[in-house]
Amino acid sequence: MVDFQSKLKEALENISSKKPLIFSITNYVSILDVAQGIRDCGALPVMWYEQDVAEQLAGIASALYLNMGTLSKESYKTMVASGRIAKRRGIPIVVDIVAAGATELTTNNSKKLLEDIKVDIVKGNKGEVSTICGGKAEVRGVEAMSHQDNLLELMKDYSKEHETVLVASGAVDYVTDGRKSYLVKNGSPEMGLIVGSGCVSSAIVAAFSAVQRDYGLASALAMSYFGIAGEIASRVSKLTGTFKCNFSDSLFSLAQKRDVDGVRIDER
Amino acid sequence: MVDFQSKLKEALENISSKKPLIFSITNYVSILDVAQGIRDCGALPVMWYEQDVAEQLAGIASALYLNMGTLSKESYKTMVASGRIAKRRGIPIVVDIVAAGATELTTNNSKKLLEDIKVDIVKGNKGEVSTICGGKAEVRGVEAMSHQDNLLELMKDYSKEHETVLVASGAVDYVTDGRKSYLVKNGSPEMGLIVGSGCVSSAIVAAFSAVQRDYGLASALAMSYFGIAGEIASRVSKLTGTFKCNFSDSLFSLAQKRDVDGVRIDER
Amino acid sequence: MVDFQSKLKEALENISSKKPLIFSITNYVSILDVAQGIRDCGALPVMWYEQDVAEQLAGIASALYLNMGTLSKESYKTMVASGRIAKRRGIPIVVDIVAAGATELTTNNSKKLLEDIKVDIVKGNKGEVSTICGGKAEVRGVEAMSHQDNLLELMKDYSKEHETVLVASGAVDYVTDGRKSYLVKNGSPEMGLIVGSGCVSSAIVAAFSAVQRDYGLASALAMSYFGIAGEIASRVSKLTGTFKCNFSDSLFSLAQKRDVDGVRIDER
Repeated sequence: MVDFQSKLKEALENISSKKPLIFSITNYVSILDVAQGIRDCGALPVMWYEQDVAEQLAGIASALYLNMGTLSKESYKTMVASGRIAKRRGIPIVVDIVAAGATELTTNNSKKLLEDIKVDIVKGNKGEVSTICGGKAEVRGVEAMSHQDNLLELMKDYSKEHETVLVASGAVDYVTDGRKSYLVKNGSPEMGLIVGSGCVSSAIVAAFSAVQRDYGLASALAMSYFGIAGEIASRVSKLTGTFKCNFSDSLFSLAQKRDVDGVRIDER
Repeated sequence: MVDFQSKLKEALENISSKKPLIFSITNYVSILDVAQGIRDCGALPVMWYEQDVAEQLAGIASALYLNMGTLSKESYKTMVASGRIAKRRGIPIVVDIVAAGATELTTNNSKKLLEDIKVDIVKGNKGEVSTICGGKAEVRGVEAMSHQDNLLELMKDYSKEHETVLVASGAVDYVTDGRKSYLVKNGSPEMGLIVGSGCVSSAIVAAFSAVQRDYGLASALAMSYFGIAGEIASRVSKLTGTFKCNFSDSLFSLAQKRDVDGVRIDER
Repeated sequence: MVDFQSKLKEALENISSKKPLIFSITNYVSILDVAQGIRDCGALPVMWYEQDVAEQLAGIASALYLNMGTLSKESYKTMVASGRIAKRRGIPIVVDIVAAGATELTTNNSKKLLEDIKVDIVKGNKGEVSTICGGKAEVRGVEAMSHQDNLLELMKDYSKEHETVLVASGAVDYVTDGRKSYLVKNGSPEMGLIVGSGCVSSAIVAAFSAVQRDYGLASALAMSYFGIAGEIASRVSKLTGTFKCNFSDSLFSLAQKRDVDGVRIDER
């Protein structure tokens, strides 16, 4: 059995020593929190939209993070162009399929991107992931209202077929690479009340994937780390403003500490 | 006389149970706070700029919120297209006329939008609203430096003529639908020190209008709720960083509590 | 010798009484923090991207702040057009050369802007400034990893040749107008952990330059004020979320207080 606590320690140590540059093309809503989340876990953020600069940043980054929120036709092109460079260089590409399932277009845009680039990790909430996997789901805006019952099975099939890791966040996070699956049981209910927390966790998945090439494991560790930070913050306050402030504190202090107690990952 | 406390309770209960989707086309400055404010009061936020996606979101949202800050020619088009769909569906449209009065163009853009779409609620600070109503005002950037003396009377005339609710925020907020008017006396001076707090309150007005079809009343209740949250936060700290953090806490906890003391609305 | 504490008091008093409008064309990442920083020090922020509105705002502002982060071809044009109006009106122009040194394009874009507009104050971290001055540097994304050894000398030469003030932020900030130089020794290590703190300090430099026409002195005072706020926040918490919250508190309360102890500026 994997010693997840040791693996998490190793990942946080490597992020701290290598300071991987995570290049994000992300939505305008949570862009600052995404950047700060990357910084809090020990990596370095950079964000851009203009295609020519983005291509150069994809050419030096250690991971590429694409987030479908507030997507425009221009940012889509930038994503594809940056994705191709990332692919050629072999750096991990993480896509957060924000709002898949909310409207026909947001669903199709996510599906199209996943056809246009071969992505390493696809992440969303359970409604979004259910949608992408062809399951039933209700997504209201960016919020999962419901999802397909046997979601993990659906995810495994999708994962195998598309050779990508899938991450579905929720009270229990599902992670699968098609062969190995993880249930990540860390987290607190307050996390879902913070706008953009899903975007931040995807960015942290990207940071972990820059130092842990088993992308399924990297995703599970990142989600566990993120969830533990939420648990700690939740003990201080359950109100959104103070919780969010403490959440950033916890992400930062856990990354400093590295040897993190309380990892709850079940391997399947 | 209206029992405003009961009406506020009812509105917060309905927001909580219906979780209305509030679609915002808003400025880049306060976009995250706008989304979090919507979330804190119990509604669900979604924001987008690209016209095709925006039209689909306007087609499923329960209210449309348009904010004139950092407006571009493209976002203007998206606003008009989304506004037409919202109008056809009969969902409320709230416009925050950010920076009206600051420059000729920002004034004209707000005026033009209000001609191009029939809006349900127009909101701004007293300088911005004074400007739109044809009164005297000094607006420096997004800040009201001065406004017309008899502003409420001016607002009533505008309201009747344009069949829209008008909301002017300030130490005392003015709300009128042309027939009924409300003076909302809740609030704290610190609110004016937080960049984007006006944008957030407009978003909360939009959330309330999604569940209370008397838009004048909805606006007054939203402004009172927002002001009470500010009063509570102000008791904890009068410094901007901590105040803002507690402000989000208060918006959230009042929405959980629902039966909110301290409503100070005078009906005229 | 200059009594820096008195000069800082004078600057904060003038900002408070004149409430200068600072017009920023800045990146999407830290735009809210930039606006709040301007507000916290007592000035008034406004941000825009569309060229026609930007030109009108440059026509009424007391300082223009251009930040190269997330630059697009459109925002570049807006910067140049706004810069020309600012120049004609004689208001100070501050440029933050974000990401100069990170890629060929980000370096060239900063260099080109400094050719296209005659700027009053150029600011960056030591890697970015080293890059612009033709020195050696490693800039990873927006982070200075290393810089030229004799940076201050290099800066003086650049300053004289280009007739501009140069500010390089770091553990000790370097400020020079080519003739007079300042070492600003205020600050705390946590400031570097907050994404966008450099962008905020540049905005505060812009606010100070609106009331102190010795731009070298204005920059040194602004950086000292910013650093002292960081020192105070650091005494409360060394964790990113809480530190950032207290940082805003300190910027605000120092600006209220005006007579600020602990200024550590060495004139050279």
